[in-house]
Amino acid sequence: MRLSIDVRLDYGITGSADVLLQIEAAAMADQRIVDEALTIWSESPIRAVPGEDGIGQRCWARGHGRLVAHYRATVDVSREKVDLHRYPATPPRMLPGELTAYLLPSRYCQSDRLEGFVLREFAGLTGGPLASALSAWVTDSLDYRMGTSSGETTALDTFASRAGVCRDYAHLLVALARAGGIPARCVSAYAPGVDPPDFHAVAELWLDGGWRLVDATGMASCGDVARVCIGRDATDIAFMTVFGQAQLYEQVVRVTAVDQSDH
Amino acid sequence: MRLSIDVRLDYGITGSADVLLQIEAAAMADQRIVDEALTIWSESPIRAVPGEDGIGQRCWARGHGRLVAHYRATVDVSREKVDLHRYPATPPRMLPGELTAYLLPSRYCQSDRLEGFVLREFAGLTGGPLASALSAWVTDSLDYRMGTSSGETTALDTFASRAGVCRDYAHLLVALARAGGIPARCVSAYAPGVDPPDFHAVAELWLDGGWRLVDATGMASCGDVARVCIGRDATDIAFMTVFGQAQLYEQVVRVTAVDQSDH
Amino acid sequence: MRLSIDVRLDYGITGSADVLLQIEAAAMADQRIVDEALTIWSESPIRAVPGEDGIGQRCWARGHGRLVAHYRATVDVSREKVDLHRYPATPPRMLPGELTAYLLPSRYCQSDRLEGFVLREFAGLTGGPLASALSAWVTDSLDYRMGTSSGETTALDTFASRAGVCRDYAHLLVALARAGGIPARCVSAYAPGVDPPDFHAVAELWLDGGWRLVDATGMASCGDVARVCIGRDATDIAFMTVFGQAQLYEQVVRVTAVDQSDH
Amino acid sequence: MRLSIDVRLDYGITGSADVLLQIEAAAMADQRIVDEALTIWSESPIRAVPGEDGIGQRCWARGHGRLVAHYRATVDVSREKVDLHRYPATPPRMLPGELTAYLLPSRYCQSDRLEGFVLREFAGLTGGPLASALSAWVTDSLDYRMGTSSGETTALDTFASRAGVCRDYAHLLVALARAGGIPARCVSAYAPGVDPPDFHAVAELWLDGGWRLVDATGMASCGDVARVCIGRDATDIAFMTVFGQAQLYEQVVRVTAVDQSDH
Repeated sequence: MRLSIDVRLDYGITGSADVLLQIEAAAMADQRIVDEALTIWSESPIRAVPGEDGIGQRCWARGHGRLVAHYRATVDVSREKVDLHRYPATPPRMLPGELTAYLLPSRYCQSDRLEGFVLREFAGLTGGPLASALSAWVTDSLDYRMGTSSGETTALDTFASRAGVCRDYAHLLVALARAGGIPARCVSAYAPGVDPPDFHAVAELWLDGGWRLVDATGMASCGDVARVCIGRDATDIAFMTVFGQAQLYEQVVRVTAVDQSDH
Repeated sequence: MRLSIDVRLDYGITGSADVLLQIEAAAMADQRIVDEALTIWSESPIRAVPGEDGIGQRCWARGHGRLVAHYRATVDVSREKVDLHRYPATPPRMLPGELTAYLLPSRYCQSDRLEGFVLREFAGLTGGPLASALSAWVTDSLDYRMGTSSGETTALDTFASRAGVCRDYAHLLVALARAGGIPARCVSAYAPGVDPPDFHAVAELWLDGGWRLVDATGMASCGDVARVCIGRDATDIAFMTVFGQAQLYEQVVRVTAVDQSDH
Repeated sequence: MRLSIDVRLDYGITGSADVLLQIEAAAMADQRIVDEALTIWSESPIRAVPGEDGIGQRCWARGHGRLVAHYRATVDVSREKVDLHRYPATPPRMLPGELTAYLLPSRYCQSDRLEGFVLREFAGLTGGPLASALSAWVTDSLDYRMGTSSGETTALDTFASRAGVCRDYAHLLVALARAGGIPARCVSAYAPGVDPPDFHAVAELWLDGGWRLVDATGMASCGDVARVCIGRDATDIAFMTVFGQAQLYEQVVRVTAVDQSDH
Repeated sequence: MRLSIDVRLDYGITGSADVLLQIEAAAMADQRIVDEALTIWSESPIRAVPGEDGIGQRCWARGHGRLVAHYRATVDVSREKVDLHRYPATPPRMLPGELTAYLLPSRYCQSDRLEGFVLREFAGLTGGPLASALSAWVTDSLDYRMGTSSGETTALDTFASRAGVCRDYAHLLVALARAGGIPARCVSAYAPGVDPPDFHAVAELWLDGGWRLVDATGMASCGDVARVCIGRDATDIAFMTVFGQAQLYEQVVRVTAVDQSDH
């Protein structure tokens, strides 16, 4: 599927501040960047560095009073639908070493606190069948509702409140998967079906040798999600991190599926 | 049922410290103190003050280097078995004013964070049927296991870990009840069936004009629990609060059901 | 000082919900209600119950779709300026029993976690001199800044962020005082100097037989604060607690000092 | 300095569990492994994977009923004393991309919550002078005291309690450094002066192109610390992580400085 992405950020900056942006779709085997343009009005040169684990890239800018960024891209996503259920389990001790961090708890995905629940409610399941059951459980157990969570909401909070937005769905699924011995990471992404239109967040679970993208909100299907960056949780994948103080003026995210029948 | 209670506390105190003890069985309509003796080796006079909401009493002592207390009592408990299910609901706005605090979240019973869960999973239930369902849910969903929790464990933690000790069962039931609009408080108590022998904690839910005692651990039945004190959560009902530093030397709690057939 | 108070609350209620309001100035020895009128558009009868510890009163209403309340009052406040420094210390064990709860940690005032700081930085101080030092420390160490905290912010958070609004100043001072063995409670209040105009929160420290009102923000002086209600922390003194879901339409709080020279 | 290291771990495992060990001194430019031997009694083959960021290595084992490990090594450490003060500052936007994660908050090092404190109390300082001031502040402000913290204690907790052990000192310094825009990571290590003998934890701050090792406890000097592994916080550098349940039977850590005068 071809996605057309158009993002505009306009923030006020108190004094001057270094700003880290993660808004570019990542060039990867299953998502090809057809064309893109990133424009940042910064008071000093923009600097690009690799994203977490070398996926995608981050941009450093310097805001003085204000920071305006505009990103526009066309991305071709070709990713097969994932059938989580069919993947065999890999015991933690047999996992590739670079996955270790994605087995461990993190600030917003406190998997260690949810082990009891996973062991009790999903006893006997491992690998794909466990992943599939956890994903279905998150989808069924949460209500998608704006305003029920904030930037400080953790997987544990969502587990209790049973409501949240995409970020909360991703955090909870990631935490539950790790609690069940499945490496899991959070993904910032663009997807056309997100309502209201915004940056999207999904989970990736490592099963049978690869990362499997799962959107427990059901808003996006695997085939129409363009990853921006990945990480342990929201800390790593924030679209903007300000090393100082900022306030929102305007933020617009538009992602549309392009009809390619004419091509 | 007649209970024989024997408690010995032996603590080291760093320097001197004021110590608040709540270890005496409370004299109440449904639990009669047959005899009792409290001995505290304190460096200054012992001072008794009323317990929270006037139930039971607290003792202030002054420890210097060490604090040793010995409490011995015989208590007759006569309390009917509670059938939670049959109590009608009272809307929050119709409750006696002095119950308001027991509707609100507290440090260890964050009912506000569990409202989503209660609304979703127990939709349509109120009053006694809700209380009964919540109590059964706690009993079924938790494993009683020593060492899985600490003095900082909250109802939210237990909700995720699905394991704990009596304090955790009480906190979780209290939090869920408040989330469902039922006033609920924590109760420190003596009960003969506690294993290993220790201070016990249970919940009380206010239904149909009175407090209904519930032990979600199933360790004690209503008829053999002698309350010590009540409060919003563990903060209020701790058997000992030291305004300084202390370390445990020895602590023995013995509660036995006395065979009254000879009497 | 004579205060003129005018409050208008307009909230949308999802479906129906019981609503607890605490917006009436309390009738107390040091603040006399000259006249007042509370109007609540509720779908069922309004019910007034005593406030925490019998101070002030709470109103229960039932909102259906919307809840609008209007409170108007004239209050004469006559309270002497407090010189915290001069009050002698009362050891915890000598305090009136009904103060015990105000010595203990609560959800937003985790005094147990701040004991190390108080013991280290204010070593040797007790009673009034300690209270005075703690109050000055809070005033000096925090920046008053809107938007830096939320309804979930605790004293521990504020202790680290060094910024907050009146609620945060009160929570931190209360937590520090309790950590130092001084009973302390939070007070919801009306005061003319609050900018932007809103409900105000201050602390009360119990010293030498009475509660001493302290506004660590410096916005109000003792003589122009009209208490609404008191409690362990924000949980108890919220101006509105909805047992369901609500959203703000409009909220206006106007408190003005009335020139009485003409009288 | 030459260190002789001898570690013995003996744990009971409930059923079977995968166990991740991080106990081998890392081979690095400033610490040369002279000889070493790691023996793990595991029910399945041991598997070594690279440590976080490729530093040191982790060992996966499989415990069944019990897990016993013995590690013995001789390590030559040659590291110059660090004079933090002299290093110039590097603005966040100019840092190597792989350091980004060490600028961000993590579960135990909530740097975002401590920004207010750092900005207020260390205004005007950056780079080396800031690092030096923060390190001295941590050393001066905390009491080293066993039993004041647990595995769940965060930098924010320690900031309030003003006491802790090596792990807490490292967490707090790391959090403060990140709050001040200095990349910082936690390091598990062996050091001879640790009392009581145990695994040690220190901080590393990235200044002027390299990681600078700092032990805010003052127990170890830079020259006698052998790193085991590094990470964002205690989550990454735990000497043992059990994917199941374990209980301690015995744990002995012996680190001695070897007199090389005879060589």
